[in-house]
Order: sequence, then structure tokens, then C-alpha cells
Amino acid sequence: MSAISTIDFKELKKEKDELVVRTGYLQRLIMAKKIPVMIVFEGVHASGKGRLSNELLLALDARYTDFYATHKPTEDELRRPLLWQYSVNAPSYGNINIYYRSWYSLYIALINQKFELNRYADKKALVKEIRDFENTLIDDGTVLIKFYLHISKEKQMEHIRKMRENPRTMWRAQEYDAENDEKYEHEMRKLLKDGNHNEAPWHHIEYDVRERAVNEMLRTVTSILEKAIAEHDRKSSEPKERDGKFKGTDDGALEGFDKCVTIDKKVYREKLEDLQQRMREVQYTLYQKKIPLFVVYEGWDAGGKGGNIKRLVEPLDPTMYIVNTTAAPNETERNHNYLWRFWTTIPKSGHIAIYDRSWYGRLMVERVEGFATNQEWSRAYQEINDFEESQTNFGAIVIKLFLYISKEEQLKRFEDRQSDPNKVWKITDEDWRNREKWDIYVEAVNDMIEKTDRKNAPWIVINGNDKKYARVKALETIVEICEKKLYDKNGN
Amino acid sequence: MSAISTIDFKELKKEKDELVVRTGYLQRLIMAKKIPVMIVFEGVHASGKGRLSNELLLALDARYTDFYATHKPTEDELRRPLLWQYSVNAPSYGNINIYYRSWYSLYIALINQKFELNRYADKKALVKEIRDFENTLIDDGTVLIKFYLHISKEKQMEHIRKMRENPRTMWRAQEYDAENDEKYEHEMRKLLKDGNHNEAPWHHIEYDVRERAVNEMLRTVTSILEKAIAEHDRKSSEPKERDGKFKGTDDGALEGFDKCVTIDKKVYREKLEDLQQRMREVQYTLYQKKIPLFVVYEGWDAGGKGGNIKRLVEPLDPTMYIVNTTAAPNETERNHNYLWRFWTTIPKSGHIAIYDRSWYGRLMVERVEGFATNQEWSRAYQEINDFEESQTNFGAIVIKLFLYISKEEQLKRFEDRQSDPNKVWKITDEDWRNREKWDIYVEAVNDMIEKTDRKNAPWIVINGNDKKYARVKALETIVEICEKKLYDKNGN
Repeated sequence: MSAISTIDFKELKKEKDELVVRTGYLQRLIMAKKIPVMIVFEGVHASGKGRLSNELLLALDARYTDFYATHKPTEDELRRPLLWQYSVNAPSYGNINIYYRSWYSLYIALINQKFELNRYADKKALVKEIRDFENTLIDDGTVLIKFYLHISKEKQMEHIRKMRENPRTMWRAQEYDAENDEKYEHEMRKLLKDGNHNEAPWHHIEYDVRERAVNEMLRTVTSILEKAIAEHDRKSSEPKERDGKFKGTDDGALEGFDKCVTIDKKVYREKLEDLQQRMREVQYTLYQKKIPLFVVYEGWDAGGKGGNIKRLVEPLDPTMYIVNTTAAPNETERNHNYLWRFWTTIPKSGHIAIYDRSWYGRLMVERVEGFATNQEWSRAYQEINDFEESQTNFGAIVIKLFLYISKEEQLKRFEDRQSDPNKVWKITDEDWRNREKWDIYVEAVNDMIEKTDRKNAPWIVINGNDKKYARVKALETIVEICEKKLYDKNGN
Repeated sequence: MSAISTIDFKELKKEKDELVVRTGYLQRLIMAKKIPVMIVFEGVHASGKGRLSNELLLALDARYTDFYATHKPTEDELRRPLLWQYSVNAPSYGNINIYYRSWYSLYIALINQKFELNRYADKKALVKEIRDFENTLIDDGTVLIKFYLHISKEKQMEHIRKMRENPRTMWRAQEYDAENDEKYEHEMRKLLKDGNHNEAPWHHIEYDVRERAVNEMLRTVTSILEKAIAEHDRKSSEPKERDGKFKGTDDGALEGFDKCVTIDKKVYREKLEDLQQRMREVQYTLYQKKIPLFVVYEGWDAGGKGGNIKRLVEPLDPTMYIVNTTAAPNETERNHNYLWRFWTTIPKSGHIAIYDRSWYGRLMVERVEGFATNQEWSRAYQEINDFEESQTNFGAIVIKLFLYISKEEQLKRFEDRQSDPNKVWKITDEDWRNREKWDIYVEAVNDMIEKTDRKNAPWIVINGNDKKYARVKALETIVEICEKKLYDKNGN
């Protein structure tokens, strides 16, 4: 490192002014092209993260920039998986989000068992979650820039001393915890080694001479944004296939569900009453054991999802469950990765979230209608498995139900709806259009179940031709899976 | 009350089925007409709030219904005013939001000093906040339905005993705290008396016979919704004036600011350095004393807001400030009251939020352009004063700056921008159109400052004809107001 005396600060200031103008110019392109950007600052205490990220903020337009700091996590954050807050706070398309500390700092705090509500033991699984999280965003077009700041011990101590000497900033200096800082550096060193093998390498910055560090940071940002814009333009000009790549096959999980399985009315009543009572107990036990439960309902139009969900929630305490319905995405949702809106609705520990349709739309309607490109929906099998794994790693129970009815039964129900003034609002032209695509939907669902039916998050196809049978069968499935996870052999 | 034996449960079931169908039908109208609805359930422990609100949920369409439970507040909630979470979780237009416990329960918990972070002492001010909050929403077209549930002591104890006897629900029964419950009832009784005088009366329901209570609740909801829909239709057919009611006057706070006040370049540098250092100390002190700071910037186009804000945040720690910019509202924002989006961005205790334009758009562009009706913007003076009072009651410092430049100076800056390739993006056709309306904007701003310049949230008009003078003047104003509030005579 050159001595301070030889540094030409005037020259650095001139370069900085140019870089700031360049950064502003590139941000306007980023915004116009709707490219999302994440910029991470990590580094030990007093290593310049605050100053550098503030310099970046000053160069950017606040309308298209957000800033997130990771401090001690709140209870809300600890009651959800590691990557929840970062998934929810991922940039909308065209936005630049800056992270002062990030999922890396939170990861280190979690594995050091610093919090009461900590659910994690398996470091490797968490590191995989981080990689999956970054890759899903990068594949979606996100530019991820990660800075790791270095500072000499002398400079670090000088910063801390300055803060300590001023009575009004003293309290901040007191937050410095040498042992903690060492642990952080130790773990980061391991992560930095791994991290350099993925698509978003770490950029190291020496902070000892601030003016030089600022320029280095801005130079890195502008050069990466320039490349990203060129890459974006190149990709945009490539043709994109959206034909769903259907092969005309119909074998798979849905085979053999056309026949009608019925249930006796009296048996139905008895079973329903028993299952609802047990479901209520399951809910209270989930809460007490702080386990989140996902129940995902998919199925044919008029397959009976609504009536099914009603029987599930009837006995429940409304303060601990939510029914999340999934329709066409709104403006804000369209400006994020398709998984974003589901991250915003995951249940916190101890709560139940029921999804009336879900992220699986990516593999059904979006594939069939060509809303997602072939590349996008093909990638989604893995992305969805990763998403669900994040939940089950955290201790969640994930149950996915597909309500199947035969083509004839669907026609009967459509016609019923159309002739009942209290139900006619339920049927739309879209339902009839979807029905015409019955066979390719079958293929899409067979592919989906084959590739996303996993031990930690199983699919169960329910024969829905008899509504009562399906209600009991679905509820029984949910109750039994939960009871098995929650109680030991003696029912405790 | 009639004895249980004389109740015709079959008849009640029949009536309930009809009410459920009716509720669903009315919700579809509510949704189509974009009427927001809030339904509150209050009552002592085990008085049936959960069961009744779940029955209501079952009658509604989950796509247009949200449910919020008030439990022990989180740290995030305690770091903001009482009504923050309820303002943020107010229904979007067409939605029905159900509140299991509400701002009333939180108010009682706060005045009983149950939480460490409690900022409130003045009960009366809080009750006024609640009334203002409800009135602002009602004036905006919200239907507010408030239920207070009554239960006999015997029935209450029976519910608690049942929960206690089942080992899986036992923990819930243990949450019952008789003393707490009594305090709650005591305070609610006072509120119920007051509450009946406002536009949203309390509806009392006897819960002892559940089936009867459910029907009573659904009957109340359907009858209020029917009236609200009729009222909505009547109001929609009335003509709405949007002419801004301008009188052609130009006297007021903006008088005398056309002349140019300048500052010497060297004095500017020295003052700026001193003020930025003090501002940094102010920030750390705000954080330590847990005081939120609002700095609102309004002013003419090209008035220098951007450069001004830059000098303010340059010395700050980015983890404790945010710059919130205000542009035309997006889809989600348009589906809420105009104040909603600002409630979502208020600073938490100890943080600084800087607004580059703000809720005052209601009284400027929305009045001038007729986006708000005369009724709407006329009401907004009071609503905005109430909103700011909610913040200052909580301990916030609220500073509002208006950057004034003369018409000639604006023309010069517009022309500069248009001829500079790095600045041309800053100027739009809208800027030129606004300029043509200079005189009515002057009248709007004079009215605005006259009616919203309050001791707890003052307006300061800054002469912006010299950019450097304005930067120093604005920063000096902010620093001095804060220092006066934060330090005693000895600077501690």
C-alpha cells in the first residue's frame, strides 16, 4: 500500500465526480430496462460499510433506490426462515437495493446461536439456502454485487476511538464487541472462499484510505452495471420460446382418478366431526411447538377447493391461520420474481397458511398459456423445491393437495353453477377456456407432481368426484401427517 | 334471556344459512363498488371473539377479506404510534378487514403501561387520536362496524375450563388473567360510552347462546352493508366539484420571497461543515433518545430540494435515515386513502425520515389539478394536522420546509437543465405545465401554510434563489430545532 502522503486527493475527487455522474446515468438505464440490482456491503465493525454505502446512496436517485440494514433480528424475523426478510425486500424490477450487512451477517449470528428463537442447527443446509436464494434471483435477471471491506486494525481502532471520544456518538462505539467481530471474520473467511465460485463473486475493498475506497466501489459498480446492461440487451434480442414443450403424454400421478369414490352420508358426518376436533388440537399444538404449517390446494376448476378449505378452517382459531388466495398478479407483484408474493405470505412459526392456488401456477397456467418462457418454467421445478426446502429446514410442515375431478364431473358442476343465481358469479369464460386445454393441463400437472413430490413436501392427489369423500380425505391427510410429526406414540 | 330449552336451533340454522348467502352477495357488491369495510371484535377473554370472527370469515370470500389479530405488540409496533399498524392494515377499497381485538385493546394495554417501550402518558390525546383515525377513514368512505361481545361469568368460566381440560389446548387457557381482564372491561366501559356518540356506534352482542350470537352478528353486518351500499350509490350520483375554489389572492406566507438572498462562498463552506458535523451528532442523539424525526421538503419545481437533501444526508449514518420520495401513486396506493402510503413509511423511534414531497400533495397538485374533490382537499387540512399530531404525540419532531424560488429563477434553472445532457432527464413537460399555473399554486401554498403551520409541526419557508444560501438555511433550521429539543442548556 502506498503511503498517504503520495495520494493525489484532488485527482481522486475529480475521478469521483465523474463516477457519480456515470452511476446516475447507468441507474436511469437500469430503471428503464427494469433490471433489478442488489448491492451488499459486508465487513467487520467500523470497516467503512456505513460511509461507503452512504456514498453510493448519494450517487443514486432515491426514487429507485432502497436501503436495508441488518441489525439484531426482530421477533417477526426470527419466526421465519433466514432468507424471508431478504426475499421480501428483494428489489422490484428497475430498483437498486443496498444491503448494509445482509443474509451473511444474519447467517453468522444464527449459527452462533445468538437468539432465543433460533431454529437452525445445520450450517450446510443454510449455506445451500443462501446459494439457492442468490441463484434464483440471478437467474431471474438480478444483478448481485457483493462487497467485502477490509480495514487495518489500526484504522479500525482509530474509527472506534473517534466515536468514543465524542459524548454524543459514544454509545455507538460501545456496541463494538471484539470477540463477536472475530467470530464474524472467521466465518466470513470461509464463506468468501466458497462464494467466489458462484456467479456473484465477492469484491474486496481496502478501506484505509476512504477516498480511494469510495472510487474503487463506484468503479466496480459502474463497470458491473455496464456489463449487465449489455448482457440484458443481448438476451432481450434472443427469441424466447413459450410453447410449453408438450409431448402429448398422459401418464403420471393423475392416472386412474376418473372413477368416482364415494362416502356414506352418516360416515361423512362422524368422520368430519372427529377430524375437525383433531385439527383444532393440531392447530394449538403447532402453535405451542412453534411449527409453521403450509397447506397448498391445487386442482381443476370446480374441483371443490373452496368447500374443502371451509371444512378445514371451520374448527380453527382465526388468530392463528390465514387463507391466501392466488389470482393474477397485481402491478407490484408483476415487478418481482414470481416467488416474491409467496414469500410475503408465508406463515410465521406456530401459524397455519392455507393456499387456495399457489406458486404452482408457474408450472400450470403460466406454462400452458405461455406467460412464462420455456426457460423460466423449466427452471421453476428446482426453484420451487428450493423454496419449500427453505421452509422445511426451518421446521415447517408442507402438505400439497391436488383435487382431481373427471372431465364429466367438471361439466356437471359448471352447468350447475351457471343455473344457480347464488353460484353463477363463480364461473367465468376463463374456466371454459381452461377446460378446452384439459389434456395439456393433465400433462403439466403430471410433470409438476413428478418433479416436485418430495419427501419433505409431498403431493397428495385427492379423488374429488364425490365432494364429501374429498373433504374427509383431504382433512384426514392433513391431520394424520401433522399428528405423526407432532405427537409421539403415546400421543404427547 | 330465554332458557336454552326454548331455543329453536333448527330455525336458527335456517336463518344462518340465509344470512351467509346474503353476506356473500353483499360482499360482491362491496367489492364491485370499491367500498372499504372494517369490522372490529372486542370483548373480554373467552367471550366468543374468535368463534364469531371465524364464522364471519367463513361467510366471506378470502380473496377480498383480511384478518388481523392484536396480541402483545411487537417491537416494531411499539416503536411507532398507536395507530400505525391499523393505518397500514386498513382495508384497500373493496376489501373487508376483520380485527380480532383492535386499537381499543392496544390502547388499554398502553395506558396500563404494560410495555417497556411505551411512549404514552396522555390518555385523552390517545382517545382523540382514535376518534380522528376513525373519522378520517369514515369520511373517506370506510364502513366501520364495531362489535362488543358480552358473556356471563358462568359461560366464560365454562369456556376456559373446557380449554384447560384438554392437554393440547391447556396452554391457551393459562393465558387467562382475571385482573387484566377486569382492567380491560373497566376501560372499555368508559370507551363504549364515548364511542356511541360518534358515527360508528358499538353493537353489543350477548354470546351465551352461540348460534343466536352468530345470527345477530351476521344480521348486523348485512343490514349495515345494505345501508352503506345505498348511501354509496346516493353519494356517487351527486355531482362533485373539483375546481379548487381559487379566489385569485396572493397574500400569505410566500410574500416577499422573490428577492435573492445570497451567501459568501467561504462562509458557506465553513457553515456547512459545522452544521453537518452537528447534524451527525443530532442523528446519534435522536437514536439514543428514541425520538423519530420527520423532515418534509416541499417547494417549486427546480427549487433545489434534491441538492438540499443531499447536504442533509451526506454526514449521516445510512442505517438510521431514509429518503422517501413521493410520485404519482401506484395501483395499491390508489386503492387506499391518500395518507395510507405515508403511514407505511413513517420513521421508527430513533430514525430520520426525509420526505422529498409528501402528503401535502393533497393540498397542492391534487387541489390544483382536481384529482381531489373540493370536499376531499378541504377536509385534508384537518386530517393532515391530525396525522402530524399522532406523530408528535408519540414524541416525534416534525419539520416542514418550503423551498421558494422566484418565477425568473425557475425559468433560468429549467433552461439550464434543458441544455445540460446530464440534467435534461430532470425536466419534464409536466414541469412546464405546472409553471403555467404559478399563481394558483401560490394561492394553494399560502392556504396550506396558513392552515397547517402548527406549533408542534411548523412550516419554514426558505428563500431558495441562491442555492448555497438555501442549503445552509435549511440545514441550520433543522439542526437548531433538533438541538433545542434534544439538549439542555449545558449541551447534554
